[in-house]
Amino acid sequence: MAKDTREKILNAAAQLIHRQGYNRTGLQEILATAGVPKGSFYFYFKSKEDLALALVNRFIEFWLGQAEELLSDPTRPALSRLRDFYAIRRAHFLETGFAVGCPVGNLSQEMGDLSPVLGERLDQVIDTMAGRLAQVLAEAQDRGELALHHDPQALAYFIVSSWQGALIRMKVCKCPEPLDIFLEMVFGRLLAA
Amino acid sequence: MAKDTREKILNAAAQLIHRQGYNRTGLQEILATAGVPKGSFYFYFKSKEDLALALVNRFIEFWLGQAEELLSDPTRPALSRLRDFYAIRRAHFLETGFAVGCPVGNLSQEMGDLSPVLGERLDQVIDTMAGRLAQVLAEAQDRGELALHHDPQALAYFIVSSWQGALIRMKVCKCPEPLDIFLEMVFGRLLAA
Repeated sequence: MAKDTREKILNAAAQLIHRQGYNRTGLQEILATAGVPKGSFYFYFKSKEDLALALVNRFIEFWLGQAEELLSDPTRPALSRLRDFYAIRRAHFLETGFAVGCPVGNLSQEMGDLSPVLGERLDQVIDTMAGRLAQVLAEAQDRGELALHHDPQALAYFIVSSWQGALIRMKVCKCPEPLDIFLEMVFGRLLAA
Repeated sequence: MAKDTREKILNAAAQLIHRQGYNRTGLQEILATAGVPKGSFYFYFKSKEDLALALVNRFIEFWLGQAEELLSDPTRPALSRLRDFYAIRRAHFLETGFAVGCPVGNLSQEMGDLSPVLGERLDQVIDTMAGRLAQVLAEAQDRGELALHHDPQALAYFIVSSWQGALIRMKVCKCPEPLDIFLEMVFGRLLAA
């Protein structure tokens, strides 16, 4: 029951904050959507910032789960797994109208200068994402799929950031072009060189 | 005098919106900072959205002016000019504490799903930026500095988006690393291939 209430708040917050941003979304709107009285909120979270931290933690767990599922199969070439990881995201945005983008990128952009607590956690989460991708890139090097002159860690950071940048343009062009350009430049050019 | 009032509003809005976001910034805060009464506002702008459009237009004029200054000198290699264009931006963010980022990227991220009017204009502005960079890349091909297999337009979009993505991480790591990785990956790898 207690866990249900916390989940209800998190689900409403995820839906609202990912769609319309942290600053536009009030605690009152989140609680009304969740159907939870304000008094209960502070039993689960210290503040709206604390709730956003919980959202970030939930998102990176989801992301790592999907990475585990899609990036770990040793029977397939490592770079094919990585390309599929992004191709699946591309398909998701095609289905959902090129909206929302990356919750981690959105919150970083919106709150990086405004909340040191959120900024620090988002920085760690980007490190985690890049670290996971770097593992696949290093594996690609071990398997002879990727030239050894590449630095997997730097490349992984670049891929994470370039994807977040592509999602920014996607949100205004409402078209797949930035995602297609990302796939071509990263997989057709950068990793092929 | 009238022009002064409009400028005062634009300057206050630029400062506040670029630093803390569109949704966090109220019209009242902008007018208090500008020292302009609310009645005067509607003489110059129809709405906060209309004001944001004027900010976007002012920013792209500034950007194109800087591009003209830094990208047009035919006595220097085209790719060196382009690299300097971004190295100067890197230096700016080092001096200003890795804050704010790209106003066009920020507004696109924050408003792309929420304001069709702003989204459409931001999409045009990104096209304009990419178009100007594509000119330099095509010039680099004409001068034999860039391999002919590259598509200048796609490359230009990728550069614009990857820079905006690098600025997102910069805002949370508060460090130059994402900008350095961008410069190395774009100029040391992608354009060198």
